[in-house]
Amino acid sequence: MDFGLTQEQMALKNVASRFLKKESPIAFVREMIKDEKGYPPSLWGKMAKLGWMGILFEENYGGYGGTFLDLSIILEEMGRALLPGPFFQTVILGGMTIMLSGSEELKQRFLPGIASGDIIMTMALTETEGSYSQEEIESVAEPRADGYLLRGKKMFVPYIHTADYIIYPARTHQKDHSDDVSLFIVNTKTAGIEITPLLSLDLQKQYEVTFREICVPKKDLIGEEGKGWNLIQGLWPIIVTAKCCEMLGAMQQVLEMTIDYAQTRRQFGQPLSAFQVIQHYIADMAIDLECSKFITYQAAWRLSNHLPSKKEVAMAKLWCSGALKKMTVTAHQIHGAIGFTKECDLYLYFRYAKASEITFGDENFHKEVVAKEMD
Amino acid sequence: MDFGLTQEQMALKNVASRFLKKESPIAFVREMIKDEKGYPPSLWGKMAKLGWMGILFEENYGGYGGTFLDLSIILEEMGRALLPGPFFQTVILGGMTIMLSGSEELKQRFLPGIASGDIIMTMALTETEGSYSQEEIESVAEPRADGYLLRGKKMFVPYIHTADYIIYPARTHQKDHSDDVSLFIVNTKTAGIEITPLLSLDLQKQYEVTFREICVPKKDLIGEEGKGWNLIQGLWPIIVTAKCCEMLGAMQQVLEMTIDYAQTRRQFGQPLSAFQVIQHYIADMAIDLECSKFITYQAAWRLSNHLPSKKEVAMAKLWCSGALKKMTVTAHQIHGAIGFTKECDLYLYFRYAKASEITFGDENFHKEVVAKEMD
Amino acid sequence: MDFGLTQEQMALKNVASRFLKKESPIAFVREMIKDEKGYPPSLWGKMAKLGWMGILFEENYGGYGGTFLDLSIILEEMGRALLPGPFFQTVILGGMTIMLSGSEELKQRFLPGIASGDIIMTMALTETEGSYSQEEIESVAEPRADGYLLRGKKMFVPYIHTADYIIYPARTHQKDHSDDVSLFIVNTKTAGIEITPLLSLDLQKQYEVTFREICVPKKDLIGEEGKGWNLIQGLWPIIVTAKCCEMLGAMQQVLEMTIDYAQTRRQFGQPLSAFQVIQHYIADMAIDLECSKFITYQAAWRLSNHLPSKKEVAMAKLWCSGALKKMTVTAHQIHGAIGFTKECDLYLYFRYAKASEITFGDENFHKEVVAKEMD
Amino acid sequence: MDFGLTQEQMALKNVASRFLKKESPIAFVREMIKDEKGYPPSLWGKMAKLGWMGILFEENYGGYGGTFLDLSIILEEMGRALLPGPFFQTVILGGMTIMLSGSEELKQRFLPGIASGDIIMTMALTETEGSYSQEEIESVAEPRADGYLLRGKKMFVPYIHTADYIIYPARTHQKDHSDDVSLFIVNTKTAGIEITPLLSLDLQKQYEVTFREICVPKKDLIGEEGKGWNLIQGLWPIIVTAKCCEMLGAMQQVLEMTIDYAQTRRQFGQPLSAFQVIQHYIADMAIDLECSKFITYQAAWRLSNHLPSKKEVAMAKLWCSGALKKMTVTAHQIHGAIGFTKECDLYLYFRYAKASEITFGDENFHKEVVAKEMD
Repeated sequence: MDFGLTQEQMALKNVASRFLKKESPIAFVREMIKDEKGYPPSLWGKMAKLGWMGILFEENYGGYGGTFLDLSIILEEMGRALLPGPFFQTVILGGMTIMLSGSEELKQRFLPGIASGDIIMTMALTETEGSYSQEEIESVAEPRADGYLLRGKKMFVPYIHTADYIIYPARTHQKDHSDDVSLFIVNTKTAGIEITPLLSLDLQKQYEVTFREICVPKKDLIGEEGKGWNLIQGLWPIIVTAKCCEMLGAMQQVLEMTIDYAQTRRQFGQPLSAFQVIQHYIADMAIDLECSKFITYQAAWRLSNHLPSKKEVAMAKLWCSGALKKMTVTAHQIHGAIGFTKECDLYLYFRYAKASEITFGDENFHKEVVAKEMD
Repeated sequence: MDFGLTQEQMALKNVASRFLKKESPIAFVREMIKDEKGYPPSLWGKMAKLGWMGILFEENYGGYGGTFLDLSIILEEMGRALLPGPFFQTVILGGMTIMLSGSEELKQRFLPGIASGDIIMTMALTETEGSYSQEEIESVAEPRADGYLLRGKKMFVPYIHTADYIIYPARTHQKDHSDDVSLFIVNTKTAGIEITPLLSLDLQKQYEVTFREICVPKKDLIGEEGKGWNLIQGLWPIIVTAKCCEMLGAMQQVLEMTIDYAQTRRQFGQPLSAFQVIQHYIADMAIDLECSKFITYQAAWRLSNHLPSKKEVAMAKLWCSGALKKMTVTAHQIHGAIGFTKECDLYLYFRYAKASEITFGDENFHKEVVAKEMD
Repeated sequence: MDFGLTQEQMALKNVASRFLKKESPIAFVREMIKDEKGYPPSLWGKMAKLGWMGILFEENYGGYGGTFLDLSIILEEMGRALLPGPFFQTVILGGMTIMLSGSEELKQRFLPGIASGDIIMTMALTETEGSYSQEEIESVAEPRADGYLLRGKKMFVPYIHTADYIIYPARTHQKDHSDDVSLFIVNTKTAGIEITPLLSLDLQKQYEVTFREICVPKKDLIGEEGKGWNLIQGLWPIIVTAKCCEMLGAMQQVLEMTIDYAQTRRQFGQPLSAFQVIQHYIADMAIDLECSKFITYQAAWRLSNHLPSKKEVAMAKLWCSGALKKMTVTAHQIHGAIGFTKECDLYLYFRYAKASEITFGDENFHKEVVAKEMD
Repeated sequence: MDFGLTQEQMALKNVASRFLKKESPIAFVREMIKDEKGYPPSLWGKMAKLGWMGILFEENYGGYGGTFLDLSIILEEMGRALLPGPFFQTVILGGMTIMLSGSEELKQRFLPGIASGDIIMTMALTETEGSYSQEEIESVAEPRADGYLLRGKKMFVPYIHTADYIIYPARTHQKDHSDDVSLFIVNTKTAGIEITPLLSLDLQKQYEVTFREICVPKKDLIGEEGKGWNLIQGLWPIIVTAKCCEMLGAMQQVLEMTIDYAQTRRQFGQPLSAFQVIQHYIADMAIDLECSKFITYQAAWRLSNHLPSKKEVAMAKLWCSGALKKMTVTAHQIHGAIGFTKECDLYLYFRYAKASEITFGDENFHKEVVAKEMD
């Protein structure tokens, strides 16, 4: 057993931390909430230069052949900084789907562009139920001589307004046949795509997306027809664990800002941190973070080592969802009214937390998975 | 023992419920969030006509001589409807302070106007610490020949932008002398009062208020000089219990809307409410509400019967703060992502809940009181 | 609304409290654990003289025609004293079943004897599943010319070793027909009844009971054949609420002994009660007790006023089961290792608590009921 | 990072598991509870032959020079089997104290005997407060020409009735001087030592120990005079982490027996494990175990690598105390009444859990440490 980072990983962490502190301070995060695009292309270019977009891709596609643990380290720092923009969507939802399941042609067409920062992607994972399950998909892909005709509606699609391509799951044949979802790469500029912004607590920009009648050529199908949900299932542990890593970073920041606040803020003539109850609150937060770390790192380690990880990944997300919730509740308890004003940084982490708790499956979703795996 | 309402109380409840459903539907609440004033004077007039503003005042001041339980019933319905506007501030913080502690002259001057809906009031309860304690008050009232010169800053003052008068606590003598806070009624139009809106999750409009150099005549001092915090302490059980009643109404609405949602929303081919885990969640919410009710009603009953109630009132707020928090967390768990979009009604109750949990003392604040009372 | 006791109820409470303090001090409780019978007939006689056994029975059966609230008050004091002996079984499980559902003949035969303290009864509520449901009953009552032949096995039957009669539910016809359970009163001295003591944490003496081939005359059937489970269902709210009242008393004692301990025990030079965390623990216990009281009293009040109470009773037991568990966990946290030694009084309340949490349905059992009632 | 065991560690685990399954089945554990000694010398000899007693000692003292992780693996299996007997006391409290802090002469005298299974030891860690703190120590060691005269009383001393030697902390000089505790090795056969068994939930045999007037030669002082508490502090992370490892094993067994039970036991015609609520309970248990593992392994890894570990060790015990408590509460929820009967294996694990939660510091104790470390 070894719970430490290697020298290289430590270096990567330091670079990421320094870079994001400089490039994505909290004032910038605030600005990007109001910004229409939601992130600056200039920052995107710098990240690409650091090799972050292609960290997991093979070298012949412009990547760096890194491990999942390498990516984890960067995601943690991104979560800590609440980095705005479609990194997760482009690299993990888009890029990894293509890398794991796309044809050679698709890989050539997309991966180098993603790695270089020239292509932005997103994926439409949920329809109206928001259940992350194949059953809810009602979008249809009608086969045509030269490809498919796509029709349907998706909810909570992040960053489509700025993405170049979207991966769109749709049923190729009959609605009643569960195993007929296929994945398509669609250019977001195609006529017939309508997007409506959804206003929510989420810091990410999210949209409702309607596909009127969209023609897609056969070559833009990822993998086999009807096997699309399998592909998503294959990528799922990576998606979920990646999200946990990002959440870890946010948890650390929430803990640190709360300790700071408790040490600075005075009540009845002493700092808050002098009260035993406040001290115990902070200890509770620290322990929730500690458990979150190890349960996530273990999942990441299993993924990196290609060990079975379905249960462990579900445990990680279930745990992190609960821990981040508990931590922000406690942080608010300590901050009081000031924590809910929009000027307070905690307010931003709170919004991030609320959204992340349910993104890619909430506690119940993953508890069901764990329960099934234990049978 | 008797856990039922009388016929009159039941009638009052029905009237209030019907009136608010009609006059303050959720679309109206949303509109008022964007409205600069935050409530329409026309609605205010109608409520005055129903006798709500003067319900607790004696009849010779234009009131109805009702009991605290009568007020409770109305507040519960107001909480359920998320009624916008400065009712709580005007009637309880302002009116009740004057009725319980004001001179005959002050009563004559203010109570009939409050009862008739012509006077709007607010009170500045917290400065920077937000601790609801005398210790934090640094505002100063320098005695002058003809009155006092007020100086200081207050935080989280609700609805001052629309209030005619504000009750302002300030230290009459030295800062280091704990027992020298006095309460002043100040016309909000006085030159030298600066207000800055605070943006927060709270649905109420809140302001930072600065008093530059405000002259107040002696007659606008409430009660004796230096005894102001005692007056607040005397009113405190009423303030806190009134808030609990309002929160009860919100809890009921959250429960009902969640049951509705669970029965309507389908997942995997059945309504959410068919899942055992969801059923248990809803049962948990119902029980938290049930306990909230009785612990609050008991406090209200003790207040109505002039029994010692310090511990019971603190228990009620502590409990309600926790219960409302738990209930909205569970409601969100059931609603999923949709619950955090701004179109979802739950989002408004969530904002109300977050603010109410800490208003007039959070769980820890009141736990300290209970702990002290148990010694 | 009225949350107070009447003068008579207060007097009843005082008498019960004084009597039990004198007659059932904790040393006596300990002694009775080792005693084979488990309670002294002399005490039983004194309680009968106070009218406790017949408090709910009509006067023409030797009773006092009291209300359920009267009984509640006594049960609370019994719980506080951990009164040993088959009071609950004799008066509520046995007596009330007969009073509510028995023939005139059965009432005449049993109620006066119970009221006078001459008859001890018990009831066999569970078989192997311990689910308090009709489905689990496999005991059979084969109809014979002159009555029935009973066969079967019951678990967790309290005090049968000292009872004169047992109420025994058995299926009159086919196993697969759910609505065919009947209730029989059987003399415990009948040949063919075998009892085996079950050793458990429960302070009550419990037995496994086997009926080999027991003949019962027709007249000892309670109510109609095949309607026995309905009778139990009819009594169920009384059984469950009565148990909650008893638990309330134990909770109060646990709270008081923990406050005492915290004030006496010193650590690091001060009493435990000087630590903020300990103070908050005690406040939490007090609030859990407060909620337990009102949720139980409400159920008792509804029963006394013949209002629908299925949901409220289930809420009360579910809440009390959880609260008593939480309170003993916290009490142990404060007591430390000493709390688990057999000399410590808390250890006895802990055993009582563990057993009571599941007796007549645990949290889940009643949560299911609440969930169903809310649909 | 690496979350796996090495081949050797895996082999060690398998041997320990098989050995303990055979030699310490649950029926044996039950027998040993009634046995006066509490464990059979024959088993002790076999364990010594496997090298377990000397696993951490250096080879020149009859040991095997293993790492703390090696010991962890064995302790986990011991906890799983509820292995009776003074292994922990002899090897960790006794042996490790001598190995880390004893003179060369003491090492020569005791370590080979411990390693060979010929010497049994225990330590008296608490007096009346049970606070595991230097402040509570009132035992006195009066300096004499030829050594010391020991006087005092200790509580909760495990297995002294069977131990050959006890390590006894006492104050060498004045009571008011905090830094004057010294550690003495005392032969338990010395006249003037009185022991009284304490009956508690703990499966371990515990005693109150009184030292009347016990002469101890200078050479039986461990380390420097007055530095004894430092020595205990030095060993403390090992003691606490070792206990966590043992608890991990018990948790695993509790989880497995609960899954078994839920799959076997039927209610309403299906196995308990078919109910969603039960499935979620089991998933919760699994996650609590998972976090317990990693937070403990991390502490063990830090100890093995001589990294600072005060905070991490405190977190581990605090977490494990809470997790084992939660897990047994849930296990009982699922088992129902049967879980509290003395025949049910869960009852034994429950007793183990209750005792372990507070042994070497309960949740609050360690939360204070974490809180201090975070400042």
